[in-house]
Amino acid sequence: MDLADLTPDVLTYLGKAAYTQLTIFENLSRAMANAPTTHAKETLSRVAAMSLAKHHGLTAEIRRHGDEPGGAMEPFTADIDNYQRGTLGNDWHESVLACLITAGFLDDFFLRLAEGLPSDYAARVTSVLRQDSGHELLAEEVRRAIDANERLGSRLAMWGRRLVGDTMLVARATLATSATGITDEARIEPVFTELIAEHTRRMDGLGLTA
Amino acid sequence: MDLADLTPDVLTYLGKAAYTQLTIFENLSRAMANAPTTHAKETLSRVAAMSLAKHHGLTAEIRRHGDEPGGAMEPFTADIDNYQRGTLGNDWHESVLACLITAGFLDDFFLRLAEGLPSDYAARVTSVLRQDSGHELLAEEVRRAIDANERLGSRLAMWGRRLVGDTMLVARATLATSATGITDEARIEPVFTELIAEHTRRMDGLGLTA
Repeated sequence: MDLADLTPDVLTYLGKAAYTQLTIFENLSRAMANAPTTHAKETLSRVAAMSLAKHHGLTAEIRRHGDEPGGAMEPFTADIDNYQRGTLGNDWHESVLACLITAGFLDDFFLRLAEGLPSDYAARVTSVLRQDSGHELLAEEVRRAIDANERLGSRLAMWGRRLVGDTMLVARATLATSATGITDEARIEPVFTELIAEHTRRMDGLGLTA
Repeated sequence: MDLADLTPDVLTYLGKAAYTQLTIFENLSRAMANAPTTHAKETLSRVAAMSLAKHHGLTAEIRRHGDEPGGAMEPFTADIDNYQRGTLGNDWHESVLACLITAGFLDDFFLRLAEGLPSDYAARVTSVLRQDSGHELLAEEVRRAIDANERLGSRLAMWGRRLVGDTMLVARATLATSATGITDEARIEPVFTELIAEHTRRMDGLGLTA
């Protein structure tokens, strides 16, 4: 089951994926600036560097395509900025969870969608998106905080549910639309079921109920 | 004329230099988040990546020394955070100028001070700090804004003077103190005169009066 037929044209894909990754990086660097300890700040700086490397891997593909990254991302900034505002979180732990949950889901989603790109782009983009995200480093921070504070766990579980809802919407908006809405829905549904199963595994790994 | 005799011990040097670079990166990523255009945001993401690479080059030296970056930076965070709060700027152009002026001055300063490190550290740290800062990319943004707005130029010139004053203070606080205050002063003075001359050249390059 795949989304390849619903992959948008190369430049749309790259513009959305690159701006999404830049937004993930922005959220990580904001969480870094607000980190409660120097150790957590240092950890976040490493995770942020990995996200920024992915963004620059994607902008390199935009340049290879003969376009400028700023121009290629521009059409998608309003929707993604709006998504970003809804996923900032009310405190540091919510922000860190948002980085983990949104980046985990969207990296998975863009990886699947990459299968529909021309094969040379598909291969390079896949290798960029498969680079280490450093999420295990952040997961340790979240698990440690939850162990120390049971209420935090139930608040973060609720926050995780809202995050995945918003993230599914922004992901769906990336799919190329076609005239045959019903067929699309039949194709999309099982893929999103798998993406949600992976999200659930990530939440389980944090000790949170999805 | 050099500062080598006033270079602190390796771990103090690395902790201060690494946290300073992390702060520069934080400021760049904040300016990135607030960038007025997608093009400027993309430019800042590249400059931020270069700063983050320097930070991680310095934390690699802390690890090589057998220490953890978080612990090595911890003793210096309060003073540098305080310096950071004074150099944020009141709008985006002030923030970008602050990134240019403070990072330019402090990279110069830490490069000179590196001469007093044990020679293997000196060589590696120098090569980290000499990596491209990407400042020419930011300078273009500032020059373009000044060309379009004469009042901005005089406001930024004043802001540049305040920045260099605060930056000199944080730099001096990094020097190892010795019992012979007068001799130190005689050694420090000409070095700071040179650092200020380089600062003046940077301001000139932006079309700003230092």
